[in-house]
Amino acid sequence: MNTAELVELGQQLRVDSVRAAAAAGSGHPTSSMSAADLMAVLLANHLRYDFERPDHPGNDRFVLSKGHASPLLYAAYKAADAIEDGELLTFRKLGSRLEGHPTPRRLPWVETATGSLGQGLPVGVGIALAGKRLDRTGYRVWVLCGDSELAEGSVWEAAEHAAYEHLDNLTAIVDVNRLGQRGPTRHGHDLDAYARRFQAFGWHTVEIDGHDVDAIDRAYGEAASTTGQPTVILARTLKGKGVAAVQDREGLHGKPLPEAEEAIAELGGPRDLTVRVQEPQAARMLHVVRDGSLELPTYDRGEKVATRNAFGEALAALGTARGEVVALDGEVGDSTRTEYFAKEHPDRFFECYIAEQQLLASAVGMAARGYVPYAATFAAFLTRAHDFVRMASISGSGINLVGSHAGVAIGQDGPSQMGLEDLAMFRAVYGSTVLYPCDANQTARLVAAMADLDGIRYLRTSRGESPVIYGPDEDFPVGGSKVLRSSGEDRLTVVAAGVTVHEALAAADALESEGIRVRVVDLYSVKPVDTETLRRAAEETGCLLTVEDHHEEGGLGDAVLDAFTDGRPVPRLVRLAVRTMPGSAAPDEQLHAAGIDRTAIAAAGRLLVGEAVVR
Amino acid sequence: MNTAELVELGQQLRVDSVRAAAAAGSGHPTSSMSAADLMAVLLANHLRYDFERPDHPGNDRFVLSKGHASPLLYAAYKAADAIEDGELLTFRKLGSRLEGHPTPRRLPWVETATGSLGQGLPVGVGIALAGKRLDRTGYRVWVLCGDSELAEGSVWEAAEHAAYEHLDNLTAIVDVNRLGQRGPTRHGHDLDAYARRFQAFGWHTVEIDGHDVDAIDRAYGEAASTTGQPTVILARTLKGKGVAAVQDREGLHGKPLPEAEEAIAELGGPRDLTVRVQEPQAARMLHVVRDGSLELPTYDRGEKVATRNAFGEALAALGTARGEVVALDGEVGDSTRTEYFAKEHPDRFFECYIAEQQLLASAVGMAARGYVPYAATFAAFLTRAHDFVRMASISGSGINLVGSHAGVAIGQDGPSQMGLEDLAMFRAVYGSTVLYPCDANQTARLVAAMADLDGIRYLRTSRGESPVIYGPDEDFPVGGSKVLRSSGEDRLTVVAAGVTVHEALAAADALESEGIRVRVVDLYSVKPVDTETLRRAAEETGCLLTVEDHHEEGGLGDAVLDAFTDGRPVPRLVRLAVRTMPGSAAPDEQLHAAGIDRTAIAAAGRLLVGEAVVR
Repeated sequence: MNTAELVELGQQLRVDSVRAAAAAGSGHPTSSMSAADLMAVLLANHLRYDFERPDHPGNDRFVLSKGHASPLLYAAYKAADAIEDGELLTFRKLGSRLEGHPTPRRLPWVETATGSLGQGLPVGVGIALAGKRLDRTGYRVWVLCGDSELAEGSVWEAAEHAAYEHLDNLTAIVDVNRLGQRGPTRHGHDLDAYARRFQAFGWHTVEIDGHDVDAIDRAYGEAASTTGQPTVILARTLKGKGVAAVQDREGLHGKPLPEAEEAIAELGGPRDLTVRVQEPQAARMLHVVRDGSLELPTYDRGEKVATRNAFGEALAALGTARGEVVALDGEVGDSTRTEYFAKEHPDRFFECYIAEQQLLASAVGMAARGYVPYAATFAAFLTRAHDFVRMASISGSGINLVGSHAGVAIGQDGPSQMGLEDLAMFRAVYGSTVLYPCDANQTARLVAAMADLDGIRYLRTSRGESPVIYGPDEDFPVGGSKVLRSSGEDRLTVVAAGVTVHEALAAADALESEGIRVRVVDLYSVKPVDTETLRRAAEETGCLLTVEDHHEEGGLGDAVLDAFTDGRPVPRLVRLAVRTMPGSAAPDEQLHAAGIDRTAIAAAGRLLVGEAVVR
Repeated sequence: MNTAELVELGQQLRVDSVRAAAAAGSGHPTSSMSAADLMAVLLANHLRYDFERPDHPGNDRFVLSKGHASPLLYAAYKAADAIEDGELLTFRKLGSRLEGHPTPRRLPWVETATGSLGQGLPVGVGIALAGKRLDRTGYRVWVLCGDSELAEGSVWEAAEHAAYEHLDNLTAIVDVNRLGQRGPTRHGHDLDAYARRFQAFGWHTVEIDGHDVDAIDRAYGEAASTTGQPTVILARTLKGKGVAAVQDREGLHGKPLPEAEEAIAELGGPRDLTVRVQEPQAARMLHVVRDGSLELPTYDRGEKVATRNAFGEALAALGTARGEVVALDGEVGDSTRTEYFAKEHPDRFFECYIAEQQLLASAVGMAARGYVPYAATFAAFLTRAHDFVRMASISGSGINLVGSHAGVAIGQDGPSQMGLEDLAMFRAVYGSTVLYPCDANQTARLVAAMADLDGIRYLRTSRGESPVIYGPDEDFPVGGSKVLRSSGEDRLTVVAAGVTVHEALAAADALESEGIRVRVVDLYSVKPVDTETLRRAAEETGCLLTVEDHHEEGGLGDAVLDAFTDGRPVPRLVRLAVRTMPGSAAPDEQLHAAGIDRTAIAAAGRLLVGEAVVR
């Protein structure tokens, strides 16, 4: 499009943003208006995208990091003839695909859910990384950011990662409209302040007037022709541009325009331009390499193996069988054992250094491109990326997360390194799967099984060695459990997972020697939970004792209760969990001090059974 | 100390680090050895600190951001005569104060728990901010960082915040030993790479050889005399410095030295130097201003007020009564209503922009200085700071966190803005308090009550208006609940909190008109939970129905079950919670779609009571 047409298109996007928000009675038109010219030029002259084939491997990828500017995005979809004008006016209404913040669950052209600021650029880095190192189909990644969100540390994790990986297929476009939600940003219209920061991190920078369509056009061209480094275009804009009553004024964030009709008239009235978006380059569809059948590692019963080791070995094997499997490390691959994968498949291994938000975002970006990512760090440090996990679930992203060094069982390193909240965090994520194996064969099977599930899948592994108790051919369906001890005279069921399974077995032996028969359930699938087995155990043994190396809230004990929250009779239950603040001590001392070792289980079991008798 | 003495002191710190790790059989001596000269010069010539009076208001503050280098810290304590050599050798043993990573729970000289990398500098910024804007006793804040942790985005949130606030009382010392846990860092010994980044963010930078004690001495002097901006000292060091077998070698992170005796000999053998650390400047003890008695806002029954508004008004009133109360905003103060506090107490209001990790860290830093911080953002975005909350609980930090815009009840903005995991996250934090008020008077009382609790206190507020149902003189003890409907013929108890209280009351009215009497409990204290009332309700009404605007895992329903996990009989229970992925819709449509509105409660109530009869 030529200059005049681009100007008209920008005005159309503004008008449609105003109309959408007016119809909704809410939304962010002023944040859309500042970026309208940036979007118009991108759509008309630079983006290569087939809206009828969003999966086209040559498609450029666009991410609206400032997700609240969704009216602008939907206005662009209308201009590209991807949606009708009527649908545009369903914005923010019940059942509409056009949500307040865009999500790929609803719209095929959205790469990742945004709305939590500072996440679009990191995910864009993940997509660009896939483009550069895996897909190699020549697509570009364009990310439209707000200026306020540059305060998020995650943006600088992304900046560091992108420059380090020389992602010249990535362009960040920053809509510097100087106004945040509650007032001016730190740097206002000082484009140089942002440029200095990006340059220091290794980016190519371009500073422009974000309402000069020719300057924007040149900047996009410069970004596309820059090699060896990512480009950021810093565009000086005005929030609410084009409508005097709101332009560059405070206190108007996230509000429809007060006089929509007048504003539309001031913008020159509605238009109905349609943009012919450039076709993507011809490219082969993503070729999913399957080198062969899966040969998981196997372990002999009685052998002592840490589940983190089994994870590493299984992941390496999975990588051999499936070319779409990738691994991502938070600079602890020697601890989590993703280093085993790195050695065998260096081309599909991504070092994210100590930047857990970028670790997650890279995984989300790769999943958006069809890969099956496994991202691993200490369970404790996955809390650093909680908001990214939350947003990934809103995206419907299929990612595998692995947290090692679970619980007090790690020993001397102390509480800062202990994952004691991770089960609660991952269980509360919509549609998640939470797995917690206790031996090496079980771990290997679960590592393979999780690859093909939907949504967020979490595997919790342990630092220390534990004896192999299952044969290599045993099946471990997700949503299942294993009854490890059972008899007709069981008076109690102990439900455990991971390290406490071994403690529970020892306690069951001790109690049996006293004449108390105990059922032991290995609840390796913490979510979904095996309601059938738990309900049967409750019926047959009368009471339950849960034991977990996790804080008492939101973990295994609560997962067990999930099986009984539909109004049916609930068994009596005692929950053993970590209720104190641990210090440094040996692993066995830790389990003992926390009251989750064999001694504590046996003692609680005696009490519970005793009470059952008295009652 | 002169050059020769400083060199000797550095060697002593190395020897003692090696000895401590050897005695423990674990720990991070090589990461301690690289920073030993940096620590020696600081301790001997620059730090002003009274180890016998850690609360001295003039004391400098030292933060070991690279918390795994704890042997170095403890060796310094020994050199300062704060601990005995015998205690040094208890490192990482059960019951020792000298944990694997330092915590203020155990040691009076530790400002904040570290061990999750990238957190020490942000907390140091919080302390320096208190020093600059509140205490004004002239102390300096020294933060010793690792180079690996500079990959964390939180470090750049801190860098931005410190420069913007002109914190010239803050010095970051970066031990650039070029080796992370699993291998080389991104930038190795390229000090300029780090300098460019810090300079771009507005810091004064100094690059030195971190083993040249005179250069270190000069650098600290330069930092102390720099005005208007914080200083970072980038020190080129060698991991394992001084012992040829480990120096600058990979694969030796977090391991005791293989041949400790030989290493100690190579370092010149044990020494027993004692440092006379400089006295702090004379300073008044922190003056806690109490301007007057607390006059909380009050609201009339039937008035419609959003609990977020009541929070804002109560916080402003609390600030008037208590000078040690401070408020921190994540650039959404107009939404959370911390803006009310800002207007009345601008000197104690801290804008942290969109950087939730720094928001939390600032609160932790201020709490360390004796202030009572309230940090607020959307409940959803507090997940961004989960790891900081976790570490704050390890510190034993007393902070108030307020999450607004809870649940699907926010309406059109959609899932990215909805706090649906926050109760699970905060309940699982050790020693936390979780409060969730349903009306304005209750909110005001809880805002005041939480100020004086221990540990992490979380208040969940709602966006929309709700009717005031309590009088202004009603008491709301933490750990309590309110029975809002009760009779001798109750056949069911509905337990609700926040927005669902009003739905529960409407459902109870509907059911009563059908002849079904229902007890309604307002569980405003989600943790600790009112076990007595819940147990009585279970006994008297037979079954419980919980209803919450939160995912089903880890929230209100699980909190209710906490009252029954000690082996006593458990009532039948049905849990209504958000089980779907919401989209955009009006608030009432959202509650209906999620199945947590009055209609859903009444329907579930009928079912549960019906079953009770059948049974």
